Amino acid sequence: MAAERIYINQLMPGQTVDQVFLVRDKDLRTAKTGALYVVCTLCDRTGVLPARMWQASESIFNSIPVDGFVHVKGRAEDYKGSLQFIIDALRPYPADKVDLAEFTPVTEHDVDQMWADLLEILRDIKNKPLRMLIKKFVEDRQFVDAFKKSPAAMQMHNPFVGGLLEHTLAMARAAKALLPLYPKLNADLVLAGALLHDIGKTAELTSGPSINYTDRGRLVGHITIGAIWVSEKAAEIAEETSEPFPQRTLDLLQHIILSHHGVHEYGSPKLPAIPEAFFIHYLDNLDAKMYMTTSAIENDPDTKATFTTFLRQLDTQVYKLSSELD
Amino acid sequence: MAAERIYINQLMPGQTVDQVFLVRDKDLRTAKTGALYVVCTLCDRTGVLPARMWQASESIFNSIPVDGFVHVKGRAEDYKGSLQFIIDALRPYPADKVDLAEFTPVTEHDVDQMWADLLEILRDIKNKPLRMLIKKFVEDRQFVDAFKKSPAAMQMHNPFVGGLLEHTLAMARAAKALLPLYPKLNADLVLAGALLHDIGKTAELTSGPSINYTDRGRLVGHITIGAIWVSEKAAEIAEETSEPFPQRTLDLLQHIILSHHGVHEYGSPKLPAIPEAFFIHYLDNLDAKMYMTTSAIENDPDTKATFTTFLRQLDTQVYKLSSELD
Amino acid sequence: MAAERIYINQLMPGQTVDQVFLVRDKDLRTAKTGALYVVCTLCDRTGVLPARMWQASESIFNSIPVDGFVHVKGRAEDYKGSLQFIIDALRPYPADKVDLAEFTPVTEHDVDQMWADLLEILRDIKNKPLRMLIKKFVEDRQFVDAFKKSPAAMQMHNPFVGGLLEHTLAMARAAKALLPLYPKLNADLVLAGALLHDIGKTAELTSGPSINYTDRGRLVGHITIGAIWVSEKAAEIAEETSEPFPQRTLDLLQHIILSHHGVHEYGSPKLPAIPEAFFIHYLDNLDAKMYMTTSAIENDPDTKATFTTFLRQLDTQVYKLSSELD
Amino acid sequence: MAAERIYINQLMPGQTVDQVFLVRDKDLRTAKTGALYVVCTLCDRTGVLPARMWQASESIFNSIPVDGFVHVKGRAEDYKGSLQFIIDALRPYPADKVDLAEFTPVTEHDVDQMWADLLEILRDIKNKPLRMLIKKFVEDRQFVDAFKKSPAAMQMHNPFVGGLLEHTLAMARAAKALLPLYPKLNADLVLAGALLHDIGKTAELTSGPSINYTDRGRLVGHITIGAIWVSEKAAEIAEETSEPFPQRTLDLLQHIILSHHGVHEYGSPKLPAIPEAFFIHYLDNLDAKMYMTTSAIENDPDTKATFTTFLRQLDTQVYKLSSELD
Amino acid sequence: MAAERIYINQLMPGQTVDQVFLVRDKDLRTAKTGALYVVCTLCDRTGVLPARMWQASESIFNSIPVDGFVHVKGRAEDYKGSLQFIIDALRPYPADKVDLAEFTPVTEHDVDQMWADLLEILRDIKNKPLRMLIKKFVEDRQFVDAFKKSPAAMQMHNPFVGGLLEHTLAMARAAKALLPLYPKLNADLVLAGALLHDIGKTAELTSGPSINYTDRGRLVGHITIGAIWVSEKAAEIAEETSEPFPQRTLDLLQHIILSHHGVHEYGSPKLPAIPEAFFIHYLDNLDAKMYMTTSAIENDPDTKATFTTFLRQLDTQVYKLSSELD
Amino acid sequence: MAAERIYINQLMPGQTVDQVFLVRDKDLRTAKTGALYVVCTLCDRTGVLPARMWQASESIFNSIPVDGFVHVKGRAEDYKGSLQFIIDALRPYPADKVDLAEFTPVTEHDVDQMWADLLEILRDIKNKPLRMLIKKFVEDRQFVDAFKKSPAAMQMHNPFVGGLLEHTLAMARAAKALLPLYPKLNADLVLAGALLHDIGKTAELTSGPSINYTDRGRLVGHITIGAIWVSEKAAEIAEETSEPFPQRTLDLLQHIILSHHGVHEYGSPKLPAIPEAFFIHYLDNLDAKMYMTTSAIENDPDTKATFTTFLRQLDTQVYKLSSELD
Repeated sequence: MAAERIYINQLMPGQTVDQVFLVRDKDLRTAKTGALYVVCTLCDRTGVLPARMWQASESIFNSIPVDGFVHVKGRAEDYKGSLQFIIDALRPYPADKVDLAEFTPVTEHDVDQMWADLLEILRDIKNKPLRMLIKKFVEDRQFVDAFKKSPAAMQMHNPFVGGLLEHTLAMARAAKALLPLYPKLNADLVLAGALLHDIGKTAELTSGPSINYTDRGRLVGHITIGAIWVSEKAAEIAEETSEPFPQRTLDLLQHIILSHHGVHEYGSPKLPAIPEAFFIHYLDNLDAKMYMTTSAIENDPDTKATFTTFLRQLDTQVYKLSSELD
Repeated sequence: MAAERIYINQLMPGQTVDQVFLVRDKDLRTAKTGALYVVCTLCDRTGVLPARMWQASESIFNSIPVDGFVHVKGRAEDYKGSLQFIIDALRPYPADKVDLAEFTPVTEHDVDQMWADLLEILRDIKNKPLRMLIKKFVEDRQFVDAFKKSPAAMQMHNPFVGGLLEHTLAMARAAKALLPLYPKLNADLVLAGALLHDIGKTAELTSGPSINYTDRGRLVGHITIGAIWVSEKAAEIAEETSEPFPQRTLDLLQHIILSHHGVHEYGSPKLPAIPEAFFIHYLDNLDAKMYMTTSAIENDPDTKATFTTFLRQLDTQVYKLSSELD
Repeated sequence: MAAERIYINQLMPGQTVDQVFLVRDKDLRTAKTGALYVVCTLCDRTGVLPARMWQASESIFNSIPVDGFVHVKGRAEDYKGSLQFIIDALRPYPADKVDLAEFTPVTEHDVDQMWADLLEILRDIKNKPLRMLIKKFVEDRQFVDAFKKSPAAMQMHNPFVGGLLEHTLAMARAAKALLPLYPKLNADLVLAGALLHDIGKTAELTSGPSINYTDRGRLVGHITIGAIWVSEKAAEIAEETSEPFPQRTLDLLQHIILSHHGVHEYGSPKLPAIPEAFFIHYLDNLDAKMYMTTSAIENDPDTKATFTTFLRQLDTQVYKLSSELD
Repeated sequence: MAAERIYINQLMPGQTVDQVFLVRDKDLRTAKTGALYVVCTLCDRTGVLPARMWQASESIFNSIPVDGFVHVKGRAEDYKGSLQFIIDALRPYPADKVDLAEFTPVTEHDVDQMWADLLEILRDIKNKPLRMLIKKFVEDRQFVDAFKKSPAAMQMHNPFVGGLLEHTLAMARAAKALLPLYPKLNADLVLAGALLHDIGKTAELTSGPSINYTDRGRLVGHITIGAIWVSEKAAEIAEETSEPFPQRTLDLLQHIILSHHGVHEYGSPKLPAIPEAFFIHYLDNLDAKMYMTTSAIENDPDTKATFTTFLRQLDTQVYKLSSELD
Repeated sequence: MAAERIYINQLMPGQTVDQVFLVRDKDLRTAKTGALYVVCTLCDRTGVLPARMWQASESIFNSIPVDGFVHVKGRAEDYKGSLQFIIDALRPYPADKVDLAEFTPVTEHDVDQMWADLLEILRDIKNKPLRMLIKKFVEDRQFVDAFKKSPAAMQMHNPFVGGLLEHTLAMARAAKALLPLYPKLNADLVLAGALLHDIGKTAELTSGPSINYTDRGRLVGHITIGAIWVSEKAAEIAEETSEPFPQRTLDLLQHIILSHHGVHEYGSPKLPAIPEAFFIHYLDNLDAKMYMTTSAIENDPDTKATFTTFLRQLDTQVYKLSSELD
Repeated sequence: MAAERIYINQLMPGQTVDQVFLVRDKDLRTAKTGALYVVCTLCDRTGVLPARMWQASESIFNSIPVDGFVHVKGRAEDYKGSLQFIIDALRPYPADKVDLAEFTPVTEHDVDQMWADLLEILRDIKNKPLRMLIKKFVEDRQFVDAFKKSPAAMQMHNPFVGGLLEHTLAMARAAKALLPLYPKLNADLVLAGALLHDIGKTAELTSGPSINYTDRGRLVGHITIGAIWVSEKAAEIAEETSEPFPQRTLDLLQHIILSHHGVHEYGSPKLPAIPEAFFIHYLDNLDAKMYMTTSAIENDPDTKATFTTFLRQLDTQVYKLSSELD
């Protein structure tokens, strides 16, 4: 492999390449002539690249690992205005020899620092059962690993490795900043809710190499998964302490998770029914919208237009110059 | 207590009564004169009776058990066209000495027979993990006791003790009758779904003496509770067998529970995404609507009208004479 | 014509063909050079095939019968990844010499057997006016012919010749299976409703050679057409018997037809207001959804994916492995 | 009967009355004492009057004709702030001896003049099949009688005898005034649509003595009834002329009837799909809203308020002073 | 007038009163006997009191100032479980002699302090045109007086004198707290939007003595009024500076005002299309919901219930014990 | 430039062109080879033409005026079935030397005659403040110029220069024709509303050369802009007459503007609350729908189809033969 990786967003038509890519999907097709060829999607952290390998065989096809890596040789070409890659040779490449960061989009922030900052904020929680519950999650190594890697969404907001942590920390910070203004709220419940509201995302989405919904994500969904996990941790505590975990505390935490989408239409089986649930719902929505609007402005391809293209998730076009007043 | 109970729906103004009632709620009020009086609701299985006890005291008030029983002496009178009961004397009555069936509306069917019939149908299930899971529920004594008692809903359909079993059995029977017509369906999944779709109702509603939502019911809801319990039972099996419970089977069962209301608006966090989930959704809806329409026709107070009053839950008035063709 | 027909789904690029096709539509266009050419769609029961005939004339164009047949010689070629047919020669072909079954998608079941099965079920009807009304339809040869051929829908479910009968029989069978569980229902009304709920489809859709909406279908719709026909048959009976057809029976039958889509949004001018109308509505919906989900699973082109593509009519992707539990 | 009728809106508490009323409904009830009494609603064209007859018998009850007339003696009294009538004596009164105009709310306009004006406008129709069809309705004596009497709605607009004619004439006049501005429209179709769009109301509503929905109205509805009648008349013409009635003309007329509510939510099984159907829909809506707003302003009881009470059918309060500019 | 005012929420049946009340509305009615009597509503800052004056005359009636004050003598009594006041004597009372604070519900906070705090926050704004615009409002004495008095809403949230300022300050504080977390936002625009988003409320609602919609409020609404005022102030600045006010700045400010309800359904003619508009929308919603939930919890009359009654504006019942974890 | 202009809808592949076009947008792109090329859209009043100029430079790119004119030499060619223009040479062309009518779609009617007709109708207004207000607009030269040029919409109806005037005149005529039938309406308010309801369109849309939304149009919208302008003109009158403009008249006019879309969903911040606002709303809707349906019929490309393609704005396909009855 060449000393320096050529990222997909740098690739030019005509360029030859001899390096490793992540494979997102593959298909074996029969050409009209009866010959077999492979169609697949290569990716790295900067984008995706449609590729074809002519004159392939079933055994070559079978050797390609979906969501795994391949070392390819070949050449980029222009096909109907888009880049396409023609694979001349291909072999599977061991996942443990790649630097995952080259292949999967990741947060720009320091994950460990974010995690430390989040823990710092959670230290404000005083209620003992809540502290125990959070400790259960924080000490669950497998959970924390997944949590640090998980994206916050497929596409809507923070759709990259570490996105869930980024979004969760943003909400915890916003909660910490606003709670002094709303002293009637149960701050412990709000902070615990900020941490837990989206934990099910770690099972709803894959965190790479490529980001996608899991079957469990589509069939059950992060809202219910999160509620189930809270029940499980509470049961563990009950077993360890030989005392029932306080039911009301459990109910309220689960209520916040279940209602945080705010309306049934977006998959919440319950509507917010406590001030803390409304609070989480609005902070969640606010943080997501701030990501969606500012990233739409930054990434809009048409630099001359004053509005972005129509964004279905916001039901509007976004005006791009609000930060530039005369 | 008199030899023969006078039920609330038999009571006439002027009648004196000396017997036990269930208390649904109570309130201590201060009259304009400063005197204290008690306002409460008495019930039996045939209805509810507003009652007042003048010249009460705080200690009398405190002695009244909400959702418990009192022996009262007093007199029914007509108050603005409705019956009201004036309590002359009152004392708490031990719950273990009453025949609950006199106080709580119950199914007209034999609960044990229904349970046996349901088990008989479930015997058709062949898939081993599903059989083990159902066995876990069937052998959970506390669960079965609650399940046999639970109403199916507060008001919408089968709102009485045993209503959940009645509705579940009706669905299992309908499934058994229709499954031969749809051989592509996974019959095991359908039958397991019929049993489990509403089990969370046993924690969402009290099953008496009076029927009401629990706090957990309002905050978390039967759909999520049911999904959590299925996870818990699967975890028990995994522990006992030292093998993970098959994830796909667990996901599909929870999916059926989560999606059985069919649309987000009615509290389903997921829409049906497998044939079996659509099947359960329509059978559930069909059975509920059959109950709602036929009971609306039977109970409509205006015997001369050809239509019932407007029924909000059906968004229509129901025509009462469809079974009487010329 | 060759001894063995080559069906569209078997055709390969480069293959020459000399056989009959059904023509779905045609267009005469002027090339940039001023020359005329024909664009048309050929079909058989396995699919559709875009075709072009260069160097055509107005008289050739006029000779092509839309919804009729042509014998063509020509050659299949690959055009931008899809198959396209280049017509070298073309002449109209008499419709009475083709085997329609080669050109129009049809039910896989035996139409006459299905019709006999349906009549058998309808024999359960005891109410005399309903029997007379059904007899009127059953003895209306033109109606029965159309009914046996009609598809159940353009695309949603059972979109092929005989699909209406297939769907109607499925509903009648489901009704027969479930009616014993709901003895309060008027079984006669349910069975008559099962037969009649969609009869207007025979005038809303063409039943071939190609399947399409009729103008009357779009302007008036099968729901109203069905209600009108029931009125007409009742009037015939009244004339023949010199007695008015019972008004209530007529009203109820028409009500079932009018309300069977369940909600206004889907074109029902009336919401279900009798148990029998709810019953027909749910069985109709159930049967349609069973078709839609199972055929989506069976026909999904991506054999490796666990979910089908997004299906607008179901507002979801369908999981394809629910019938394969571990 | 007294020389001068005392209308219900003139009646004062304490006044004794000895005259005929229309009976809208009746009920026989058992007092708490076991005695029977009658509850009924008396009406005349100015309003309704709740009445009770104490110490009644079943035979008295049976003698009261619902939607018929009774001669009563009795006395008005104040009951909880409303007027109530106590019947001392009562006997049925022959309907053919009353002046219906005293009992049923009626249009303030001359019915025959309105009918003549409507026919005059319809004379503009030039298309022969449409002329024949309209002639069929105009010469159907029973239809014309019903049409002249029918209200346009229960409550929404023109809810009085003659209201349908009043509304139909208003629409025909508006169409005649606007058609010159929209010359691309098929004026014949518009005028025929104006006449026919609501004819089903004559079977959906009773036209007195009291105004109410019929069972057929609730189960089938005026939209479908109107479409059926147009089919029937077209069939009669076809039989008389031995030529099929032009299908397209029939389809378009029925389409206008079916789509005139404009959206599915208000019971239209089809949305407008021709300019003429949109035209009828908006004129219909406009005329209804003009009635609703101006009559709400005129009848608002609170003369000091600048807004009427909230009107559910308009989803707003109406400002009452728009006609009084400074 | 007695040394010590008896507030309405302290009044007991039987108590005689001789003091001043605010009159919210009045009506002159004719008793069944023909005698005239007055029905009116008296209020003070703690509530409203239905009152009647028997044996009144037209001149007495005319002397009562709606939204003005009367000195009354009379007696409270219990009428069907509610308090009613019987007026024995009554005379108008000059508005300039009352302490308004006794009659109109007012914020519990110090209005001048809140205003000062708000101005302090606005000092952060750096953009010059925005500073000038805000200065225009701040120096408009009439505006500031109205702004300090205005309620934030009729009933939904902060429905008392000073409520608008309270709500505006809360939003400005929340914005100041959160803006550091969202550095990509235009902080000046956010702070100006926080101040201006609801200014139209000062013309939409009366600020006392009683709180009500104005005609202009109902016909035009606070959203449009606010946008108009911003245009007016910008025009004044343009005139004074002889330079056009920067159009983009004006557009963006008006956009924030127009879109702050977030969806069309709640009266926003534009949806948020800049990050700052989303920001204002969510903070506005959050602050309103915090008021609504916490005040619903605090004011719920049933101290034993764990849930409040159903709150239409929140589409739910609120659980009252979220601040009391075990 | 050639003697005779070749319009875009006449252009054939292969044709060379040497003439002026309007430029709607432009983009400078880097080919895969690194060379720069220009992509732009040329237009004239008959359509738009995608164009490319290979081997361009930044200085050429910068010389192209968006919304201005260029003289180009080049050649039309067929690209994937559509016409594309290859620019060989290009130079900016002064806007004052072109005949705008060649480049921008315009009304087919005489603008000055329409304006005169509109003024003639407005002469019926008798209320003095309304006359003064309208005079203010009519004498505002800049406004009148813009009003005469403005389209009525981007695409929905009358999307061409002069379209707003055409639509406004049509509404004024319809109002004049219908007002005699609704004598209870305030005719002055209706006519003023007809003139003013859409005036904000002149600032919401550009009136050429190309038609597009302005930033102010997207951020603020024509409804609010119209309301603001009415306030401004009223303020001018107040200043000139030293008398406040009558508030109620101002409120009502603004109410009509604000509510004329009829429902919140379409951007009306207020629902119609006076008969005159309903009247304007329905006439506006009627005129727009007449344009949309008849122009869809006239412009449908498929001359053999009986229905147009699906029209999203009408939620239906339109039947094209309603004007051709048998």
